[in-house]
Amino acid sequence: MTRSDSPTYLLGELAERIGARLIGDAGRRVNGLATLRDAGPDQVAFLANRAYLKDLPATRAAAVLLHPQHGEACPVARLELDNPYLGYAALSRLFDPLASRAPGGVHPSAVVDPSATLGARVDVGANAVIEAGVSLGDDVVIGPGSVVGADTAIGAGTRLHANVTVCHGVIIGQRVILHSGCVIGGDGFGFAHDGARWHKIAQLGGVVLGDDVEVGSCSSIDRGALGDTLIGNDVKIDSQVQIAHNVQIGDHSALAGCVGIAGSTKVGRHCMLGGGVGLSGHLTICDGVQVTGMSLVTNSIHEPGVYSSGTGAMKNTQWRKNAVRFKQLDDIAKRLSRLEKGSDG
Amino acid sequence: MTRSDSPTYLLGELAERIGARLIGDAGRRVNGLATLRDAGPDQVAFLANRAYLKDLPATRAAAVLLHPQHGEACPVARLELDNPYLGYAALSRLFDPLASRAPGGVHPSAVVDPSATLGARVDVGANAVIEAGVSLGDDVVIGPGSVVGADTAIGAGTRLHANVTVCHGVIIGQRVILHSGCVIGGDGFGFAHDGARWHKIAQLGGVVLGDDVEVGSCSSIDRGALGDTLIGNDVKIDSQVQIAHNVQIGDHSALAGCVGIAGSTKVGRHCMLGGGVGLSGHLTICDGVQVTGMSLVTNSIHEPGVYSSGTGAMKNTQWRKNAVRFKQLDDIAKRLSRLEKGSDG
Amino acid sequence: MTRSDSPTYLLGELAERIGARLIGDAGRRVNGLATLRDAGPDQVAFLANRAYLKDLPATRAAAVLLHPQHGEACPVARLELDNPYLGYAALSRLFDPLASRAPGGVHPSAVVDPSATLGARVDVGANAVIEAGVSLGDDVVIGPGSVVGADTAIGAGTRLHANVTVCHGVIIGQRVILHSGCVIGGDGFGFAHDGARWHKIAQLGGVVLGDDVEVGSCSSIDRGALGDTLIGNDVKIDSQVQIAHNVQIGDHSALAGCVGIAGSTKVGRHCMLGGGVGLSGHLTICDGVQVTGMSLVTNSIHEPGVYSSGTGAMKNTQWRKNAVRFKQLDDIAKRLSRLEKGSDG
Repeated sequence: MTRSDSPTYLLGELAERIGARLIGDAGRRVNGLATLRDAGPDQVAFLANRAYLKDLPATRAAAVLLHPQHGEACPVARLELDNPYLGYAALSRLFDPLASRAPGGVHPSAVVDPSATLGARVDVGANAVIEAGVSLGDDVVIGPGSVVGADTAIGAGTRLHANVTVCHGVIIGQRVILHSGCVIGGDGFGFAHDGARWHKIAQLGGVVLGDDVEVGSCSSIDRGALGDTLIGNDVKIDSQVQIAHNVQIGDHSALAGCVGIAGSTKVGRHCMLGGGVGLSGHLTICDGVQVTGMSLVTNSIHEPGVYSSGTGAMKNTQWRKNAVRFKQLDDIAKRLSRLEKGSDG
Repeated sequence: MTRSDSPTYLLGELAERIGARLIGDAGRRVNGLATLRDAGPDQVAFLANRAYLKDLPATRAAAVLLHPQHGEACPVARLELDNPYLGYAALSRLFDPLASRAPGGVHPSAVVDPSATLGARVDVGANAVIEAGVSLGDDVVIGPGSVVGADTAIGAGTRLHANVTVCHGVIIGQRVILHSGCVIGGDGFGFAHDGARWHKIAQLGGVVLGDDVEVGSCSSIDRGALGDTLIGNDVKIDSQVQIAHNVQIGDHSALAGCVGIAGSTKVGRHCMLGGGVGLSGHLTICDGVQVTGMSLVTNSIHEPGVYSSGTGAMKNTQWRKNAVRFKQLDDIAKRLSRLEKGSDG
Repeated sequence: MTRSDSPTYLLGELAERIGARLIGDAGRRVNGLATLRDAGPDQVAFLANRAYLKDLPATRAAAVLLHPQHGEACPVARLELDNPYLGYAALSRLFDPLASRAPGGVHPSAVVDPSATLGARVDVGANAVIEAGVSLGDDVVIGPGSVVGADTAIGAGTRLHANVTVCHGVIIGQRVILHSGCVIGGDGFGFAHDGARWHKIAQLGGVVLGDDVEVGSCSSIDRGALGDTLIGNDVKIDSQVQIAHNVQIGDHSALAGCVGIAGSTKVGRHCMLGGGVGLSGHLTICDGVQVTGMSLVTNSIHEPGVYSSGTGAMKNTQWRKNAVRFKQLDDIAKRLSRLEKGSDG
């Protein structure tokens, strides 16, 4: 998608910004980033995965970001870097049209309570609502239609995209990104049963998001029942994720789309949960655990490593037969044991 | 999270409000609720689960709510009640800062159609939209950014948090709570296929939510194709839940996060669906059914009890071997039968 | 749900509009559509599934839409059509109260950037936001509270319901329907890891939705990392669905509620994914594939047909025993092989 408002750079500038060694014309101007295959003569491409080495000889890019070991094979100018994938990340941020937008101040249609305190260069979008006692750090961007509830504090450089909801009394760190439709601080799911009906337990805790957290579209992080729901620094949360009350997520962990974590579970640091993974409540997951997609975890995990559950898809006709047998599995195991005893005798 | 606007109470007042027997100073003032371990000298704590009995001797709380059998062990003032968990629920609501907010009336930035009828003490937040023909009962709160579609009726005491969407022609009972980002009355998923492409079936039914229903953040309840989608009284629905068109949920049932229920399925009264549970369409689930987390139900259930599917997580290396064998399960069962016949012969 | 603003028709008009043969009074006026069982004397009913043939004799409907083969059995006026289910779809759209609403123009509370271009009869709801460079085709409806990001183009006849978010630089076809709470064009989930922490990869691609696409409540379709996320023509997406960056969905495919598709996966044409299905990233699913509810697909599928994974629900007591045995499955299979070798010897 070529965008008229994309920033442009000289190759020399780019090399300096990302700390790469340029072999080529430092004065050549580029206006975008693309794959080796798609890049045009005004764009930069990158090679960060050997699987795409085959696309290098025919690239039409102005320059290619790559590891020095592939420099010789590059038919155009090159930006050499030891970790070209990190370099790609840095380049992508340089070409992000949102990053270069000038702050627009408080839009006249936004409703900002007079008791709110706003840092320097804060941008509050059209029809956004900032309630009483809110504090917004410097360079905060609040997207159009977003609502920030009473007494919430948002750190410097944080961006809420459009139609985000942050409820009352939430604490958000610096450089956090909240995508559209996500909800931070809705009530946790707590009720007491009297034998006949439910009685609501008011959720009096809050949510604390560390620095550099990202939360995807339509995800929800519920407020704690008494204490707070705690999301560590540099935690990355994809779209459609549900995090229940009083969950704790350690620093640098990443949760893919559609993950659901039940109440009071603690996830360690540097964990990675695949798409659709479910964690039961009140578990402890240690640091360095990976769980593969759509697995259900019902017990605590005390050893780092990769964990899985479920079965992979197969043709429905074959699956039906096997799924029926699953219901007989305990019986099958017992019959096998009997046979083994018989054959030993 | 200590909040400046939390209400405060004398211990004597609290005892009276929740029907507990106070042993201690009725004139002592408290300003919050916390766990036995976290409570400070201005807070009330509670003991509702024997697992926390160990925290009782060292608590610094002003008073502890507990069962009379634990009264002797309590080092501070106490509020005795036969069901302390219900008492905790009652206390939590007393300390809820939202409950004590004075209604703000209709915010000047809200757009309320002149044909809408508003009860007494209605609060319509900033930039909310109330369409034509809407009726809001007494004490209704509509959060900022929320939209209430044409001809929808909302009963007394119901609260929509920020950025909720209720579509046209929906009927909502009394004391209902809708959390941010939830959508009530979006179209059901109905299309007719002509052999080549899809033709939309307009969804002409509505949604009816009973009294005391709660719906979590980012959940969706779709409108019926012809008749209505029906959610009974005192049904509690967590975040990220999807309820398809013409589903019926019986009174007092509870659905945990990420549940999905396909079209026209009827769930009985007093059912509990664990997180991530999926119910196929056109099923009947009788009263008193519990389904454990992430189970898939593809057949009707006619007997109360606990139901499950799937397998728990294990180390990926072990899981890979077992998952491969699952694809051979029917074959394994047949081979076992052959062996059994052989050993009988 | 009878609605005061439902359109009314003469039976003769209806027959003409849907191309049916009317046997009955062309001048009789009807005001709604209902099932055979529920229809009153001012409503039309339909018979599209033999399971409801039993309700035909006692219907009180003004007329019944049905296949000619059932004409004789119909006690009231009838509309005969070879495909009555398609006819029902057509009737439903005629009775849709939303379809007959006159466009309201741009509501005074909406914020429309002066650089946006609006087609004829465009309707922008209360407190909606249209950013710079947006182009809206003729007859586009933007619901209250919805936000359309900069430089997005929306084709003629497309409707965004309330509180929809379309981010910047998205391209949306004609006659598309986006339901409340859905988010089109949030960032894909892309980060580079430096061994200690995550570095964001700015998501520079867009999203392209074809013509006649429908996206359900609270669903999210993420923007591409470099190229675009591509949703074909006539693709129908239910509520609570997550589509990751750079996914491609072929024309006429349908995705039920709670589906999650990981990054860069390509789904063919005329595919159907059941509720809660998960597809891993970087897969290719060929045309004409159906996947049953809550299945996990971790490998590409190259042959049309029906695919499944998982196991159905059973009583928890029975399930516990079988789920334990699943963890022994590889061992069971090996022991069986040993026994077989023994019995051969």
